Amino acid sequence: MNKNETKELLERVARGETSVEAALLALKDAPFRDIGFAKIDGHRALRCGAAEIVYGASKTKEQIAEIAAEMLGSGQKTVLITRMSPDAAEFVSSRLPLDYNEAARAGIAGERPAPDGRGKIVIATGGTSDIPVAEEAAVTAQALGNEVTRLYDVGVSGLHRLLAHTDEIMTASAIIAIAGMEGALASVVGGLADCPVIAVPTSVGYGASFGGVSALLSMLNSCASGVSVVNIDNGFGAAYCASMINHIGVI
Amino acid sequence: MNKNETKELLERVARGETSVEAALLALKDAPFRDIGFAKIDGHRALRCGAAEIVYGASKTKEQIAEIAAEMLGSGQKTVLITRMSPDAAEFVSSRLPLDYNEAARAGIAGERPAPDGRGKIVIATGGTSDIPVAEEAAVTAQALGNEVTRLYDVGVSGLHRLLAHTDEIMTASAIIAIAGMEGALASVVGGLADCPVIAVPTSVGYGASFGGVSALLSMLNSCASGVSVVNIDNGFGAAYCASMINHIGVI
Amino acid sequence: MNKNETKELLERVARGETSVEAALLALKDAPFRDIGFAKIDGHRALRCGAAEIVYGASKTKEQIAEIAAEMLGSGQKTVLITRMSPDAAEFVSSRLPLDYNEAARAGIAGERPAPDGRGKIVIATGGTSDIPVAEEAAVTAQALGNEVTRLYDVGVSGLHRLLAHTDEIMTASAIIAIAGMEGALASVVGGLADCPVIAVPTSVGYGASFGGVSALLSMLNSCASGVSVVNIDNGFGAAYCASMINHIGVI
Amino acid sequence: MNKNETKELLERVARGETSVEAALLALKDAPFRDIGFAKIDGHRALRCGAAEIVYGASKTKEQIAEIAAEMLGSGQKTVLITRMSPDAAEFVSSRLPLDYNEAARAGIAGERPAPDGRGKIVIATGGTSDIPVAEEAAVTAQALGNEVTRLYDVGVSGLHRLLAHTDEIMTASAIIAIAGMEGALASVVGGLADCPVIAVPTSVGYGASFGGVSALLSMLNSCASGVSVVNIDNGFGAAYCASMINHIGVI
Amino acid sequence: MNKNETKELLERVARGETSVEAALLALKDAPFRDIGFAKIDGHRALRCGAAEIVYGASKTKEQIAEIAAEMLGSGQKTVLITRMSPDAAEFVSSRLPLDYNEAARAGIAGERPAPDGRGKIVIATGGTSDIPVAEEAAVTAQALGNEVTRLYDVGVSGLHRLLAHTDEIMTASAIIAIAGMEGALASVVGGLADCPVIAVPTSVGYGASFGGVSALLSMLNSCASGVSVVNIDNGFGAAYCASMINHIGVI
Amino acid sequence: MNKNETKELLERVARGETSVEAALLALKDAPFRDIGFAKIDGHRALRCGAAEIVYGASKTKEQIAEIAAEMLGSGQKTVLITRMSPDAAEFVSSRLPLDYNEAARAGIAGERPAPDGRGKIVIATGGTSDIPVAEEAAVTAQALGNEVTRLYDVGVSGLHRLLAHTDEIMTASAIIAIAGMEGALASVVGGLADCPVIAVPTSVGYGASFGGVSALLSMLNSCASGVSVVNIDNGFGAAYCASMINHIGVI
Amino acid sequence: MNKNETKELLERVARGETSVEAALLALKDAPFRDIGFAKIDGHRALRCGAAEIVYGASKTKEQIAEIAAEMLGSGQKTVLITRMSPDAAEFVSSRLPLDYNEAARAGIAGERPAPDGRGKIVIATGGTSDIPVAEEAAVTAQALGNEVTRLYDVGVSGLHRLLAHTDEIMTASAIIAIAGMEGALASVVGGLADCPVIAVPTSVGYGASFGGVSALLSMLNSCASGVSVVNIDNGFGAAYCASMINHIGVI
Amino acid sequence: MNKNETKELLERVARGETSVEAALLALKDAPFRDIGFAKIDGHRALRCGAAEIVYGASKTKEQIAEIAAEMLGSGQKTVLITRMSPDAAEFVSSRLPLDYNEAARAGIAGERPAPDGRGKIVIATGGTSDIPVAEEAAVTAQALGNEVTRLYDVGVSGLHRLLAHTDEIMTASAIIAIAGMEGALASVVGGLADCPVIAVPTSVGYGASFGGVSALLSMLNSCASGVSVVNIDNGFGAAYCASMINHIGVI
Repeated sequence: MNKNETKELLERVARGETSVEAALLALKDAPFRDIGFAKIDGHRALRCGAAEIVYGASKTKEQIAEIAAEMLGSGQKTVLITRMSPDAAEFVSSRLPLDYNEAARAGIAGERPAPDGRGKIVIATGGTSDIPVAEEAAVTAQALGNEVTRLYDVGVSGLHRLLAHTDEIMTASAIIAIAGMEGALASVVGGLADCPVIAVPTSVGYGASFGGVSALLSMLNSCASGVSVVNIDNGFGAAYCASMINHIGVI
Repeated sequence: MNKNETKELLERVARGETSVEAALLALKDAPFRDIGFAKIDGHRALRCGAAEIVYGASKTKEQIAEIAAEMLGSGQKTVLITRMSPDAAEFVSSRLPLDYNEAARAGIAGERPAPDGRGKIVIATGGTSDIPVAEEAAVTAQALGNEVTRLYDVGVSGLHRLLAHTDEIMTASAIIAIAGMEGALASVVGGLADCPVIAVPTSVGYGASFGGVSALLSMLNSCASGVSVVNIDNGFGAAYCASMINHIGVI
Repeated sequence: MNKNETKELLERVARGETSVEAALLALKDAPFRDIGFAKIDGHRALRCGAAEIVYGASKTKEQIAEIAAEMLGSGQKTVLITRMSPDAAEFVSSRLPLDYNEAARAGIAGERPAPDGRGKIVIATGGTSDIPVAEEAAVTAQALGNEVTRLYDVGVSGLHRLLAHTDEIMTASAIIAIAGMEGALASVVGGLADCPVIAVPTSVGYGASFGGVSALLSMLNSCASGVSVVNIDNGFGAAYCASMINHIGVI
Repeated sequence: MNKNETKELLERVARGETSVEAALLALKDAPFRDIGFAKIDGHRALRCGAAEIVYGASKTKEQIAEIAAEMLGSGQKTVLITRMSPDAAEFVSSRLPLDYNEAARAGIAGERPAPDGRGKIVIATGGTSDIPVAEEAAVTAQALGNEVTRLYDVGVSGLHRLLAHTDEIMTASAIIAIAGMEGALASVVGGLADCPVIAVPTSVGYGASFGGVSALLSMLNSCASGVSVVNIDNGFGAAYCASMINHIGVI
Repeated sequence: MNKNETKELLERVARGETSVEAALLALKDAPFRDIGFAKIDGHRALRCGAAEIVYGASKTKEQIAEIAAEMLGSGQKTVLITRMSPDAAEFVSSRLPLDYNEAARAGIAGERPAPDGRGKIVIATGGTSDIPVAEEAAVTAQALGNEVTRLYDVGVSGLHRLLAHTDEIMTASAIIAIAGMEGALASVVGGLADCPVIAVPTSVGYGASFGGVSALLSMLNSCASGVSVVNIDNGFGAAYCASMINHIGVI
Repeated sequence: MNKNETKELLERVARGETSVEAALLALKDAPFRDIGFAKIDGHRALRCGAAEIVYGASKTKEQIAEIAAEMLGSGQKTVLITRMSPDAAEFVSSRLPLDYNEAARAGIAGERPAPDGRGKIVIATGGTSDIPVAEEAAVTAQALGNEVTRLYDVGVSGLHRLLAHTDEIMTASAIIAIAGMEGALASVVGGLADCPVIAVPTSVGYGASFGGVSALLSMLNSCASGVSVVNIDNGFGAAYCASMINHIGVI
Repeated sequence: MNKNETKELLERVARGETSVEAALLALKDAPFRDIGFAKIDGHRALRCGAAEIVYGASKTKEQIAEIAAEMLGSGQKTVLITRMSPDAAEFVSSRLPLDYNEAARAGIAGERPAPDGRGKIVIATGGTSDIPVAEEAAVTAQALGNEVTRLYDVGVSGLHRLLAHTDEIMTASAIIAIAGMEGALASVVGGLADCPVIAVPTSVGYGASFGGVSALLSMLNSCASGVSVVNIDNGFGAAYCASMINHIGVI
Repeated sequence: MNKNETKELLERVARGETSVEAALLALKDAPFRDIGFAKIDGHRALRCGAAEIVYGASKTKEQIAEIAAEMLGSGQKTVLITRMSPDAAEFVSSRLPLDYNEAARAGIAGERPAPDGRGKIVIATGGTSDIPVAEEAAVTAQALGNEVTRLYDVGVSGLHRLLAHTDEIMTASAIIAIAGMEGALASVVGGLADCPVIAVPTSVGYGASFGGVSALLSMLNSCASGVSVVNIDNGFGAAYCASMINHIGVI
């Protein structure tokens, strides 16, 4: 049960449409339910303003399906599943309604929520190789109720490609700047933008890119103010932050 | 000239209090002025929503004073000066109105603006040794028009100290979590909070803390969502991000 | 021959049930026996208080079986085999009595000893992905005569999950805290516990987790006292330490 | 108030020597007291089995004296102060009873407790340069109620020096193995000992010792079981762990 | 004797102005002269197209003066001295004609040659803190016969500052891009330029800038083609490369 | 359209062979064309003096073929494709004229241009294992209009092999020095040469070669002047730099 | 032609058994022969005191066979081939006489020379997993004319295993100490031995062993004098050094 | 008492010049003597073939003097003291006969032994900045009875300087190659020499030299056989190894 759903419940109680007892029952679920191999944190949506997310990387397809089903069965309307292989997605979608994005290796089980944020989240990438991380961010942002604008392949070695999109950059609520190699995109975007920039280094590159470390260091040292950084390839985390920013004061 | 000042100027034009010519004159300054050893970026306030900041670390006290005077003389009401030694501060304050915070090694030249953000920014530290970085963040946040709540010495090895402040954490607009050593504060705060958390690793520690690298890595790997990270000891950068978040949709 | 067995032998001598000559014969085995590709260290049990362990990682299944058989044939009652693939386990179990734990990739050949420690060893993990390391620790602890309590998926981003188990943490003889990513579990547990905490970083994570290095550094820098650290993914080593602690003054 | 002191208090209540009200008063202190720049954690002794420790590294001599006085004034009998310069020690000792060990850069304010552990803690060093870290460990162990045996300069390049002390090593409750350079002492001691070994890498060395990193890695990779590791130069942390081990089941 | 001087000598021989014997004498100097603590490589100018350079960092002021005097005395017209403290410069200038640049910590002993390259070398820096490295490059370039254009403080977080100088960038023979922190300047300049870009990372920054390593990695991973990199803070090396490029086909 | 083609176009206009309108049409193409998954930068050739290059590493064979076809169809005469697998090359060559070099994993689609540089580019390698990187450099140099001399297996542990080629080294326009392991080739060649040396570390080696990092560091620290460095295994980047140098003042 | 062969040739000339002309012919071979993909360095045996070695890692089985055949055909009696897969070995042995050691992944083509060194080379390993590196060292030592004593699995966590071989250690000409994990073997052997110790770190281990880096650092920091180190897993290099030492003053 | 001295003693016994009892007395000294802060290892000379060495780095001048005096008083004829400041040297020389080399920061107390090795040890450096390390090696080699040839400033960027000394290189018993920066000297010397080369990386350099790490890695990856490596700046260790090699079969 997320914050909106909780609010709706309380409003139904206020309007007399739901009895106090029924509301209590809905709320009284233990803060987490133990399903053996994982503890599902039902109150986290309430506490942190977003639905529980399933990190699929270290789970079997059966575990992913079981956890997602448990969540949907407990009243959660939207479940985001990240780091899920196409094979696992096929298995899950045979049991649950699932909207899977193969480039992102992520999917939405249940309903995709309508955008309810303050504005748009811009997702920019330095090159085409960064797109999988960008798509993970896009799917996440959408699952959390945000409208997304994609600006792909606008790296700094061809500035005119980026400058052609100054409008989108100047009007965003939050920007996710995704780049591998030297990661300079974050600084240039940060210099142009008037909103927080979440930088995502990617493991794209070779040799001295060290699996994304060079881009990570570059972004941490950005000479532009207003830039903060998440882990390498962590499109999900960047979108989560951006969604929080885009929903400030909403609801 | 920052965004508010520009807006005021335009409104004065709209009300007929300022002629179009005078307004044009005020706006037509070159986007940057070259004063020999530095280019002052006058339009950045307009472009990025905040006043120009002087990074004092590599400048002489004379240069700091000259740049700040030039800015104040050009109509900037507030100039934040960071990484300024007490000695430089003494010199600057003999020439300009300066409110210097020695722990922060930062000061505000000109007026301190009234808070105009959405809510409060919480600044939490793991230990007492992190306070200088926290104070840099606090001075910055105040210079950018934010109200600040300080929660110092609430590290995770004594959880009750942190849990005693759950209210402040749950109602913040943005939280700055500052910690050295193992940097676990960011994850624990991120798990409790309902707003973006900007994590700042500090160079506090010894041995395998590697000047803040351990805390940095810990924060980048935070298992809590909604946490993004800035450079080691970068209290300024964290506050700049937090202020942007706290001002979304304001003005 | 381990310490208990040696003690029994000496007591039998004291009671006249075994002649001095027979006892001498049992003890006089060379300190190690060379079986060509490895030297088996028979006196180590006597010297170090625990049975010899077979580290299976770099050995063929035939070598594992031969070494374990040699040990059991020399009077060792329990042989712990770690880092053994399911395939090797199948081979070994066709030749010896073997209790294999696939998640742990470890097994016990011969008898599982009854717990004879002072209290319980608590094994806690931050997430579900850390379970294989935790199970290696659990199997090891049991092979060395300890009772084990498992607390899995109690990571610090959802503190209530951990706090629900304060009792187990406060009454343990020793705690093994296992976590990847930012490794903050060790500090939080260390702050709650009244006994030694052995921290095990895991290679769980991606990007800047650097195969467990981030968690390792985090744990080495723990702000909680009473925390010491073993190698990445070294569930065995942690359990060995914990067992030593749990057996102090016993026998 | 530490565990023993709490127990004494309760026993005095049981024997009618202290009224319930007085006991309540003694216990009811807030779990921590805020003295402005630090939160003093009075219940930690109760919770973690040891007195509060003052980490002097980042504190002024006035702060150290104030914190220690506050603790002693609240009924704490022993306060350990680590990482304290001779200059600060002189200042503190002019205000409080202080037993300062200059090599250790640590001191005990208040009473030195009588040893009440199970056995002895052996502190071994590879060379003479490791002695400051060893002395920090020794002072800590004594402040926590342990008897200490020092074996200094017994590095592995002259094995006979170490082997001459096999008796002390075989009969210890816990061993602290301190070495810089290649850190091999931990493995050799671990192979000889029958109790937990806490390894402390030191920053002694030059070139590729990398300020203790080489010794740290060596110790983490120890081929001997029963070895766990603390941070570089962390004599305090090792002694804290060793004291916990030496007090298991005592009180 | 550098290449031009050798050519002049040969032409004088061809014109009969110098006897073969005298020319032989001038050329027959041993390829290097041993002055005790250093071997002076007289033929290197001939072999590598530039005068010998004195790297002052590890030499006493007396040694610097002696080496430079020996060179000037052997017919070398210009001697560049780098990494020379103001104190050493004062000593040297009391014995030799020296044009010292304090920001650069470098100076030219003897004559400053007239520019004889193909075009101009542009030296750009990201910030004002990079100026010492830039000045070392400028002095070096001038000592090697190049005309220099300085573009300082044109970092990428304020793109308009850089774009205001597109003309200089598009018409350079070679560009030296100098930046610390995230080092993005090299990529942006590389995308705009039509000539080789030599990137110089600087040790400017703090925290995760790691003394220039972040900038170095960023530059090595530049997504712009035509960018090569020299050591951190190596303004000299960059200018040496740029001068070679600027003199291709000249003489 | 590259610089030469643009010049030809302008000359045809000057000679009246092409109308101003037709020329405008040819030039007015948007600076980049968006083909969905990538933005093709048509003006880059004009801006940077070389044709667009397709970096095949992260693209499907279909994407490579589509991009190359689009380029050739837009008037580009030569398209260089790097990091292309033999499988992809087979696919592309079934659709386009392609000259594929399997060792280099690179190929030229369209025409191979005639050499039009100032002189020759020498490509030297330390060992035979470095040849794939060298061939990538050679194909790139040829695609950009350069004549190439290959000196393979001339590593410094057998100096006579290198010294046998002093002539080629002394007369090159630019030298590409390619080596793994200790990377000493760059320094020795730099000491012999009279032209810029572009050093390429390779990932050849094992153990402490760390995938090319040792060679990279060695080259960055070269004691020879005139050496600059590109990323590990970046034969393409080195050749691009060398070609720029070899074409200075040409056209 | 190696040194012995050259000496024999010269002696045959001295005894009149070979004409000066024939000898000249035998010696006049170019210092290296170019066979297309590699330069064979025939004079290296003369210069460096050992036969040419073929490093098989980056060569096809056909190349290995061709190079070895060329060498044997030129009068070389013994050719050592290292880093050769079993598959390549099978191919080579179908064309040449080859004595292949699969554990070592190395073989000797042609004759195995009789030992002609001063004494024995002892090869010691810490564990059984280090044996492949040890066997590479053993095959190399034998190919270079040395007698070898193997002491395997004598790691320092069970000192008695090593001390049982004090005689072999005290009487060796040179010792090769091979260990992974913490690499302490080198220090302990170095403390016992009276001859040079060549330490070889191995990539054996996991987690913080970092592929042999921990052992490498440990060995470089050895507190025992007389220990020098070669690259990780470089059994060949260690044996080459040891053979040089064992042949000093011989011939 | 070193090996020679022990041998002399035994021969005197054999010749009846010393009684068995006197000899026994001389030999019966405990293997080490404890003088409080250090254990002096008297038998090490006997065991390892060289006199005890005092590592002065972490010792007070009083400790150095006391240890050296104790050694000389026990019959040791020569005591080498390394890492000793000029100030300490002055103190020591006021109490003992001391031959101090300030560049080396090392000195010989007692007699300097006559050279008794097989041949000469060549000590070569890349630059003049490496001389302090070279002098430490030279003093050490002389203290251990070796004749030394110095070849300073023969770095590989000017090959002719090195090649001018081919004779010394070809006839050495052992070579110590000392270089900072890129460390290529070891490989080039290793390719020329016919004897073992001990490579010493130095901390000379800046930026990406990382305090000697680049040179260290370069040397470990040397493509020349016969090269082994000691710690950064460890001139002592290299000379100790070289002396062992130079004394093989002597006595």
